[in-house]
Amino acid sequence: MRARGYNAAMTRLLAHYLVTAAHTDIRARAQALALEQSVEMPLAAITDVAIRTEIVATVEAITPAGHGRYRVVLGLAGATLGRDLGQLLNMLFGNCSLQPDVELIDAEWPDELLANHPGPRFGLAGLRAALGADQRALSMTALKPQGLAAAELAKLAGTFARAGLDIIKDDHGIANQDYAPFAARVVACQRAVSCANAARGGHSIYAPALSGGPRQLRQQIHVVREEGVGMVLACPMLLGLPVFDELVRHELPCPVIAHPALAGAGRIAPPLLLGRLFRLAGADATIFPNHGGRFSYDRATCIAIAQAARAPWAHLAASAPVAAGGMSVDRVEEMLATYGRDIILLIGGALLSAGPALAERAAEFVTRLHVAAERAA
Amino acid sequence: MRARGYNAAMTRLLAHYLVTAAHTDIRARAQALALEQSVEMPLAAITDVAIRTEIVATVEAITPAGHGRYRVVLGLAGATLGRDLGQLLNMLFGNCSLQPDVELIDAEWPDELLANHPGPRFGLAGLRAALGADQRALSMTALKPQGLAAAELAKLAGTFARAGLDIIKDDHGIANQDYAPFAARVVACQRAVSCANAARGGHSIYAPALSGGPRQLRQQIHVVREEGVGMVLACPMLLGLPVFDELVRHELPCPVIAHPALAGAGRIAPPLLLGRLFRLAGADATIFPNHGGRFSYDRATCIAIAQAARAPWAHLAASAPVAAGGMSVDRVEEMLATYGRDIILLIGGALLSAGPALAERAAEFVTRLHVAAERAA
Repeated sequence: MRARGYNAAMTRLLAHYLVTAAHTDIRARAQALALEQSVEMPLAAITDVAIRTEIVATVEAITPAGHGRYRVVLGLAGATLGRDLGQLLNMLFGNCSLQPDVELIDAEWPDELLANHPGPRFGLAGLRAALGADQRALSMTALKPQGLAAAELAKLAGTFARAGLDIIKDDHGIANQDYAPFAARVVACQRAVSCANAARGGHSIYAPALSGGPRQLRQQIHVVREEGVGMVLACPMLLGLPVFDELVRHELPCPVIAHPALAGAGRIAPPLLLGRLFRLAGADATIFPNHGGRFSYDRATCIAIAQAARAPWAHLAASAPVAAGGMSVDRVEEMLATYGRDIILLIGGALLSAGPALAERAAEFVTRLHVAAERAA
Repeated sequence: MRARGYNAAMTRLLAHYLVTAAHTDIRARAQALALEQSVEMPLAAITDVAIRTEIVATVEAITPAGHGRYRVVLGLAGATLGRDLGQLLNMLFGNCSLQPDVELIDAEWPDELLANHPGPRFGLAGLRAALGADQRALSMTALKPQGLAAAELAKLAGTFARAGLDIIKDDHGIANQDYAPFAARVVACQRAVSCANAARGGHSIYAPALSGGPRQLRQQIHVVREEGVGMVLACPMLLGLPVFDELVRHELPCPVIAHPALAGAGRIAPPLLLGRLFRLAGADATIFPNHGGRFSYDRATCIAIAQAARAPWAHLAASAPVAAGGMSVDRVEEMLATYGRDIILLIGGALLSAGPALAERAAEFVTRLHVAAERAA
């Protein structure tokens, strides 16, 4: 067959994997992985010279990584990736997600491929501007438990806004259930927060949780626009990464916070998935389970997630990392010492546990965050 | 706070998990999991009686499962699940996907909750009818490698259709790349298959791969309708399960084959995810990596996937299981002996490896499948 050239084919995304294999097998295993993540057929059966040289993934490096594992770097041809983040994830980890000896740990984008992805539209700086808090760390809480009716959630939202919380989000399990349908809930909660803001000159923002397929999402975004909602929450791995990508590019009038539901299912390194890939998809903030809470990521992993979300990266605005998952007001200073001021602290259940002292506990959260910020300044 | 009643709240979905814990801790761990997968806050902080009794997930059973693990059965309140499959997955495994000591292994739906999900519209029986093959196992192959232009893919499709292959699908890595854009490719491949069918009185069906976000999907489905395409391929975990669900309910005029890309990322048992959840979402056929190929599922797991896809289950039509992932023509009889006639055999790369003898190898696949079917009859 004839040779031919592919646009952007000489530009390769470098995908880093940890592969478990015997020393004598790793070369063949890496080559098999390169075929799996590109042409999915035996190399010998490919007669087209251009496909062999420009489309088949290349094995760029194999280095020992300890414990019987190797770090394998593949060069994925830019031409195979298209501009869609679903296809990017497909080429990075689609089929090899089904091979338990492979873990996706990192990726390096050349600028030409990054240029396809605008990333966060608001990002950390945009959140700060909207909240009128340009120097300090930001606070977030969650409306819960699910089962509450819209009016009850709105009452909670108002209490939190009066306490000066920056961002008040729906719990991610609050979807479109009959007991608090999206439209009724968003109208009630947004108005409660707006009233509290008006009364105290505050800047609190309510962030409802989006859910469902494209039709339901369209209806929900219509409500978001109508009510002048300032921020939304969405789970990229539940909605689908291509859906999240398209919402950011074309639909959403406001910043979006990524929630990690289903994203822990395994074998994609958290800093890559929650940090870089969600940022690439345009998450303005990304929630991660902080160490010492209900989840098991260690401190180093959490710091790596925060760095992946906000460290300089080509043209991409910084996403705000959101430390979450069973945090308490007692940990405010420690968390700020760990993450600095480019962080959002999310405390939910620990505020609600205060029962009748909810408003005081929420105010304490806000005060401790502000005081720590002033001390650090 | 006052008590209250929830629609369908007394109906619970039973979710089965494997949880690693010490004997002395398992009761508390199971209770924590029940909170994580429902209200996400401490039970003590919930004062509403109806939420405590009707919304909080219940621990229904804890039984030793060996190797320091326990089978924990939770009752998830039907009222929290809504009608959206994304929310179902969220409640089943959203947050606890981030907890590595938990694996989702099974689920039991009461009929009232299943009634929200129509499931496959065509299913195995519908595929058989469309293909004019009401008794035997079905054959499938894939157009590859990616990098080929539309005209070259169409030439391959024509060769396969003339050989009598039942279903000719795009490789799942073939998305909307510049070298073979969706519209041009689908027009060319569909016409090649239609011509071959007309020439030999055949019933081969071409199944292009859908990809991207809702906007791109709408454009692709428009092409599918315009060209009279008879079947499509889609990856539920890449597109997002709610997108797949909505495509089936509202958009797709033809049967859909589910591809497992990204679905192996871990800790959801394959028979539940590839078998039952994809069937619940309406997959008419579900591709799984058969044992002895490029993937590592063992024979028992593969048989369990096939059974989950096709065994009687309330009102849900059977999905066709599709054995795939590095299969060869030599294995046709063995695979039929394992799975019987309610199966689709997918052989891709092994046909293309025949090089100039591609048409003969494809015809051999078809013949061996037909001969085995006649012997079994």
